[in-house]
Amino acid sequence: MTRQRLGVCYYPEHWPQSRWSVDAAMMKGIGLSFVRIGEFAWSRLEPNEGAYRFEWLSHAIEALDRAGLKVVLGTPTATPPKWLVDKMPEMAALDADGRPRKFGSRRHYCFSHEGYARECDRIIEHLARAFGGHPAVAAWQTDNEYGCHDTVLSYSPVALQAFRRWCEARYRSIETLNEAWGNVFWSMEYRSFDEIELPNLTVTEANPSHLMDFQRFSSDKVVAFNRRQAQIIRSHAPDATILHNFMGAFVDFDHYALSDDLDVAAWDSYPLGFLERSSHDDAFKLRYMRVGDPDFQAFHHDLYRACGRGRWQVMEQQPGPVNWAPWNPAPAKGAVRLWTFEAFAAGAETVSYFRWRQAPFAQEQMHEALLLPNAAPNDAYHDVARISKELSSLDARVETARAEVALVFDYESAWAWRIQPQGEDFFYFDLVMCFYRALRRAGLSVDIIPPIASEVAERRLILAPALFAPTRDFSEALAKSGATILLGPRTGSKTADFQIPADLPPGALRRIIDIRVRRAESLRPGARIRLSGQGAFVRWREFLALGESVTPEFTSEDGETALARSDNVLYLAGWPDEELLTNVLRRVFIIAGMSTLALPEDIRVRDNGAMRYIFNYGAASTDISALVGEETLLIGSCLLESCGVAVFRR
Amino acid sequence: MTRQRLGVCYYPEHWPQSRWSVDAAMMKGIGLSFVRIGEFAWSRLEPNEGAYRFEWLSHAIEALDRAGLKVVLGTPTATPPKWLVDKMPEMAALDADGRPRKFGSRRHYCFSHEGYARECDRIIEHLARAFGGHPAVAAWQTDNEYGCHDTVLSYSPVALQAFRRWCEARYRSIETLNEAWGNVFWSMEYRSFDEIELPNLTVTEANPSHLMDFQRFSSDKVVAFNRRQAQIIRSHAPDATILHNFMGAFVDFDHYALSDDLDVAAWDSYPLGFLERSSHDDAFKLRYMRVGDPDFQAFHHDLYRACGRGRWQVMEQQPGPVNWAPWNPAPAKGAVRLWTFEAFAAGAETVSYFRWRQAPFAQEQMHEALLLPNAAPNDAYHDVARISKELSSLDARVETARAEVALVFDYESAWAWRIQPQGEDFFYFDLVMCFYRALRRAGLSVDIIPPIASEVAERRLILAPALFAPTRDFSEALAKSGATILLGPRTGSKTADFQIPADLPPGALRRIIDIRVRRAESLRPGARIRLSGQGAFVRWREFLALGESVTPEFTSEDGETALARSDNVLYLAGWPDEELLTNVLRRVFIIAGMSTLALPEDIRVRDNGAMRYIFNYGAASTDISALVGEETLLIGSCLLESCGVAVFRR
Amino acid sequence: MTRQRLGVCYYPEHWPQSRWSVDAAMMKGIGLSFVRIGEFAWSRLEPNEGAYRFEWLSHAIEALDRAGLKVVLGTPTATPPKWLVDKMPEMAALDADGRPRKFGSRRHYCFSHEGYARECDRIIEHLARAFGGHPAVAAWQTDNEYGCHDTVLSYSPVALQAFRRWCEARYRSIETLNEAWGNVFWSMEYRSFDEIELPNLTVTEANPSHLMDFQRFSSDKVVAFNRRQAQIIRSHAPDATILHNFMGAFVDFDHYALSDDLDVAAWDSYPLGFLERSSHDDAFKLRYMRVGDPDFQAFHHDLYRACGRGRWQVMEQQPGPVNWAPWNPAPAKGAVRLWTFEAFAAGAETVSYFRWRQAPFAQEQMHEALLLPNAAPNDAYHDVARISKELSSLDARVETARAEVALVFDYESAWAWRIQPQGEDFFYFDLVMCFYRALRRAGLSVDIIPPIASEVAERRLILAPALFAPTRDFSEALAKSGATILLGPRTGSKTADFQIPADLPPGALRRIIDIRVRRAESLRPGARIRLSGQGAFVRWREFLALGESVTPEFTSEDGETALARSDNVLYLAGWPDEELLTNVLRRVFIIAGMSTLALPEDIRVRDNGAMRYIFNYGAASTDISALVGEETLLIGSCLLESCGVAVFRR
Ligand SMILES: [Zn+2]
Ligand SMILES: [Zn+2]
Ligand SMILES: [Zn+2]
Repeated sequence: MTRQRLGVCYYPEHWPQSRWSVDAAMMKGIGLSFVRIGEFAWSRLEPNEGAYRFEWLSHAIEALDRAGLKVVLGTPTATPPKWLVDKMPEMAALDADGRPRKFGSRRHYCFSHEGYARECDRIIEHLARAFGGHPAVAAWQTDNEYGCHDTVLSYSPVALQAFRRWCEARYRSIETLNEAWGNVFWSMEYRSFDEIELPNLTVTEANPSHLMDFQRFSSDKVVAFNRRQAQIIRSHAPDATILHNFMGAFVDFDHYALSDDLDVAAWDSYPLGFLERSSHDDAFKLRYMRVGDPDFQAFHHDLYRACGRGRWQVMEQQPGPVNWAPWNPAPAKGAVRLWTFEAFAAGAETVSYFRWRQAPFAQEQMHEALLLPNAAPNDAYHDVARISKELSSLDARVETARAEVALVFDYESAWAWRIQPQGEDFFYFDLVMCFYRALRRAGLSVDIIPPIASEVAERRLILAPALFAPTRDFSEALAKSGATILLGPRTGSKTADFQIPADLPPGALRRIIDIRVRRAESLRPGARIRLSGQGAFVRWREFLALGESVTPEFTSEDGETALARSDNVLYLAGWPDEELLTNVLRRVFIIAGMSTLALPEDIRVRDNGAMRYIFNYGAASTDISALVGEETLLIGSCLLESCGVAVFRR
Repeated sequence: MTRQRLGVCYYPEHWPQSRWSVDAAMMKGIGLSFVRIGEFAWSRLEPNEGAYRFEWLSHAIEALDRAGLKVVLGTPTATPPKWLVDKMPEMAALDADGRPRKFGSRRHYCFSHEGYARECDRIIEHLARAFGGHPAVAAWQTDNEYGCHDTVLSYSPVALQAFRRWCEARYRSIETLNEAWGNVFWSMEYRSFDEIELPNLTVTEANPSHLMDFQRFSSDKVVAFNRRQAQIIRSHAPDATILHNFMGAFVDFDHYALSDDLDVAAWDSYPLGFLERSSHDDAFKLRYMRVGDPDFQAFHHDLYRACGRGRWQVMEQQPGPVNWAPWNPAPAKGAVRLWTFEAFAAGAETVSYFRWRQAPFAQEQMHEALLLPNAAPNDAYHDVARISKELSSLDARVETARAEVALVFDYESAWAWRIQPQGEDFFYFDLVMCFYRALRRAGLSVDIIPPIASEVAERRLILAPALFAPTRDFSEALAKSGATILLGPRTGSKTADFQIPADLPPGALRRIIDIRVRRAESLRPGARIRLSGQGAFVRWREFLALGESVTPEFTSEDGETALARSDNVLYLAGWPDEELLTNVLRRVFIIAGMSTLALPEDIRVRDNGAMRYIFNYGAASTDISALVGEETLLIGSCLLESCGVAVFRR
Repeated sequence: MTRQRLGVCYYPEHWPQSRWSVDAAMMKGIGLSFVRIGEFAWSRLEPNEGAYRFEWLSHAIEALDRAGLKVVLGTPTATPPKWLVDKMPEMAALDADGRPRKFGSRRHYCFSHEGYARECDRIIEHLARAFGGHPAVAAWQTDNEYGCHDTVLSYSPVALQAFRRWCEARYRSIETLNEAWGNVFWSMEYRSFDEIELPNLTVTEANPSHLMDFQRFSSDKVVAFNRRQAQIIRSHAPDATILHNFMGAFVDFDHYALSDDLDVAAWDSYPLGFLERSSHDDAFKLRYMRVGDPDFQAFHHDLYRACGRGRWQVMEQQPGPVNWAPWNPAPAKGAVRLWTFEAFAAGAETVSYFRWRQAPFAQEQMHEALLLPNAAPNDAYHDVARISKELSSLDARVETARAEVALVFDYESAWAWRIQPQGEDFFYFDLVMCFYRALRRAGLSVDIIPPIASEVAERRLILAPALFAPTRDFSEALAKSGATILLGPRTGSKTADFQIPADLPPGALRRIIDIRVRRAESLRPGARIRLSGQGAFVRWREFLALGESVTPEFTSEDGETALARSDNVLYLAGWPDEELLTNVLRRVFIIAGMSTLALPEDIRVRDNGAMRYIFNYGAASTDISALVGEETLLIGSCLLESCGVAVFRR
């Protein structure tokens, strides 16, 4: 089993060479193992076309190596230098308004531009050849945060051409496309693939099928862009670990698909910044402003563990105030440690901090780091030193196992309901988070899964809210699984072509629960469909027609089936408020024969193999002795302080 | 007298031909008489340039005809096909930012583009020749919802050229234009008509006279576009009824002017969607989320009756949740019937539902219909069957008569105060609705009128709030009318050139009430100008100087005249809150010698000739026996249920 | 000492020539001395290229002169005529989205366009030659409200070229620029000045150093544009007073730098419009809706007195409702007089009203004036007549003296925190206003100063909140000054290159107070860092490390130093709420040995030499006898009415 380790992100090019070995020694001194470097350094690696300057990078790697550190080497393709952009200005993405997205920050490229892709091939080829065999280079990171700053969708002429070819490959004949999209509607029919336009600047909203395919195409382009990088790296460093650092609450491309070309899925965890940017209300944001949403990080740990097929890590862990959220408060004392152990509890191989030393210049100068700009240790530096000692004492290792409970998270669904929310606040991500939070408050350790058949086996409970268009394979696997299954709302409400199923939703899933969704309505804030004493639907509610085998498990006050049941399969006909979801899940757990934990409000639990971690996201110390029972705490105490972590072996 | 009938909108091109006669039989079975078809089918009528394919349409008409249904045939000009757009890309409208509004939805054309207008001539010529004499084709609809999706204003080069010619025709000499617009201000003078620009992308706001003339020009272009269609249709179908389906709360062109070329004004009534999109507060929207604003539909019925010079109908009646509002709830049980009878009470010739069967694909797939996508009857299907029986039993007919009360609604006024609100919440439409609502809550049946002399005769009470620039003719007619007249606020505050009248507002109206508006102020939310015990002005207040013949009827606490009176003419010097407006109208009714009804809160009344209709927009059953008296109810009962309709003959 | 006088803005070109002498006589009749004319009249002065038409202007000046009025003549460069714009369309500024800002209102030019600058030279040359020696022309106004409508920044090709040259002049070598901006970050390095782009349309935010230099460049362009005008005027009218009319709450260029080329700084004071546009909450806006923010005007009077190095005036004083704020209420009775005396109390040479007569046409037709559109006197006309009598009776004169208290206001700081707020509500202008308000509520008369060494001498107290990058000179002057000094938050937190100082903030200011700011955090609304019983930090808080000579004067409840002190130098480590700022200043006044006044809530005091003015911004009459003591009131009474003014000689 892999030992769990710490790392950090480092920019040697920002500091004098004399500093590198000092930094390396300090890193080693607080127990770091991995150092990510290089991912924005193109202008230093190739300051003029073809003039490669890799010596400094060799020296930096050597300095780290000498200190016993391993390197994660980033490809610099997120920041093409000015001379390259000037050589091919049409490599710029165009935004939905048709404006070029210019040089002057980062990610200034269109994923469909073949010329740029070839430039990437070239620099990666040179880098991989130079460092692919270096013993200190343990892993490679492709690019950086694909899609950050809304860069997946580009409305450029090259994107248009590529989209036409993509459509042709998918549909073969234009008649098939016209039928799939329903283009007879509003005379939107095309006579050839070369008539297809991008779905921006239309007079009113474009066809959802058109938007969906453009989103799929764009996602595919990101996946292909990454694959090209991975293949070149592998050709020179066949044993290297290849990873990419994904983001939080980000769904603009299919992360499962992209991860197929990776060895490890990494993500960048900024609990306070993500909370500020979330759709939570002000009270929630104030309450958790210094610790973050108690469930957001865990959700992503579980999601990226799924992406990495078990292998995952945190590449950028927030160490202090950042610079990019609407407001940027300091973490609570202990929060950095709390976040770190939450990741290890979910099976992270590595937690790597962003970054080693705060840059005094440019866009991220207000982003804190382990060191202050003047090289003095910042708070997180001391936190990390402590964490690395604790890790050793725990002998912490990755101990993954398939969880009994699986929650489906699907990128196409996220796109679908963004394209067609039907009510302004129908956010797929938020809905799945509601389910995740309720499971976690019940003390359950959860697997996030894509909607594929192979993930169904060995589950006791599978939840699939708002799943856009389940495949036949997945539906069949569910039918055979024997697990308790909770579907809805909106699950199965479309075909893959973004049409309503011929005999109404939930389409193919009718084979596992014989209902028809005959009507759906969205509900403005304040509108509630009450279930006496059990909570209410908000935002969304459906009207079901039940087949003979189906019984209403819960009914709304206005007499509609709110929760339908057919044996071990249930369908929830709306967006539940917290109270209703708790009651629904209580019923579901009984059906599934599962036991849960009674957790105090801000306490969370996560199992990593036999290790049980307990976390306190609250502001006050909390008695957790009921959870610990007779076990011996390896870390922490039964009166768990704010931001406290307790660990025991079950 | 015309019998009142039901209809539906149908898209045979969306369904297999085998289905058409099944559908027709079902339509007939629930009592429908009219079926609108064809209005988005250009890509099927002419899939390639000049390759006309009308056979399917003939077959569809025949299928309907055989079932005894009459057809309303739409011209397909709202959705030019891709090949046509590609032939003349400059036919696209440009938005105010100068971006082309592209193919991919509908209404992708600039009203000023002569090339496109000729394409429309051509297809309509062919259609009218083919179907103008068909006995089943009872009526023609021009285009669809002119102006929908903000398509009246286009900032294209062809619009610029056309606007210059329009200005030349209006002003003859550039000096006259410069003076009319006050272009000496900020050196905005032009030396020739070819120097004129469109009023977009100016550094700060453009000249209101410039904006007003661009709005007039744009409205004229819509009118001319429609006239061209009407003329071609009439040349081939001289006896056909020509209509257009207007929208709700939409003022971007002059609907009176356009209606001069129509036989019947139709409108598309979506009570729930329009409520969601309105400026009402959240409490109001929640309260009426399933029935709609109790006065909005009635207002538009009265407005479009004015447009159609007595002949009007509902072309698209909401039958269930729609897809285009911020939130899309289901109608209350009974609401579709309530809406339908409200239209008949106001003299509709036909109420036609949108649409027959829910399309499973494209932009409106979440828009419900009489049939579900799988062809099963939806709720409204059963509602319609009931309504058609009731209609027969009532032997309901159009029985129009001139109402004693007339409320002026004027498109130029709507443009004027949008161009120059002077306070952010001065919405002309909302102000007129306040007056309409107060009249209707007093149990009055109202005529909406344009500000023209011929509408003045035979009225007992005329109300003209915020009337931009009354003509000399209209002012004279008011002077001679003998009716009680309530003017203001802002009425007569501008000349037709968008200047302040030389001797102050109300300009020419001073002949009927000798006041001068010496000051106007706008009031932020929360600011109130109180009248002790009578309510308050909000949003807007004026300061009047009274001539000798004028007395202050109401006075504000700060000592200004709030309601001025000169015999039977009154001027209201501000935007009244509900309480004040009620009190003002109470006084006005006394002056006019009119009696009113005391209606329970959510009850409304409408007379159609001798037929009195009573409606319950409230959530609870309400006793209406005081309103019914000794009369016999033909429909409904004295304890009128929620969404209930009661009818008796007075 | 200069006598304090009244003036008005006048547009003879809007009215028939026959009216000019009537107007002039009326102006004289109510005691006006100065009349500003001509500043938007280019299309009348040169209706066709090279066809100068100055006769009418001569006649207008003569008419005013004959009545004994002096003229302020404006250059018409804010409104180039259409023929000129058509001659060089590329003179248009481009907005940040790359759209041209078109003809049709005003200020439609790019400050970097040399062709337009030459056109300005030409028209000014002709005007100055014609009227430079005219005895009635007492002063010249350059252009009008530079920067109004966001016109300082232009993203045009000519701006790009000029910016590249500006960068070259500032940095000499591209390596120096790359280092100053930290362009190694994200590979943003340039190889030559010709690779530099404008910082718009970047994928995410541009480098703050880049943004700062573009802002500096743009400010320099405005200054140069103005200097060119001033030089031409001076060459023909060496004794004329040259001024410009600045705006309120406007910081887009460096007003100190531009004022170096002026004799007098003027500003346009619209208390109600500015209040509506401010960031104050609704309650504040409602409370002061008819009198304006009690401190806003005074702040600008003091600011522009600094700009004019003692010589300043109000060029446009609001006389009634205006047309450009979200809501435009009427001033309270007495408010115009209150505002006028507030300006004289702060040493204004002239208060000039905008404008003489309300134009019935074009964009400002709803902007009131001394006369109504029909030439009848409006309220302010009578106010002015009264004020001019009172001015005479007071024999009011400008009596400036250096104030004991100086508050630093710095344009670069305003740019810096707009570029990098780090928390959404960190508004520099608002922070400085908080300090100003607190000083003024303590009854102090304040000097606003730029952060330059020469302003430091002879002060007892100097406050410098959020001062971006103090120069070495200024820091040294502070060190030597002996004054009590209150710094922070954010003061000294950057170098001039927009980098964090090498050994942390406050950089060079550490010589006067030995602290290091080791962390800064921004706080969302509702988050408060409490100091027991003394108030709280909101929006922003810093964590300090104190040197040995520094003691914590105030400490937060979470144990951090909130106010650090080293002898007479203090550093405030956050954004104080009103309570905390009051407490901090109370402490600071004691340290500085200053006495203050106890003012009733809406009462304000201002000294002009020996004259003490007392103002009542409240809605109720207030007893001010404690402030007047034994002195004799020259104006006003001890029970000071709402909007009342009291004056006595100390
Ligand atoms: Zn990052
Ligand atoms: Zn429609
Ligand atoms: Zn102005």
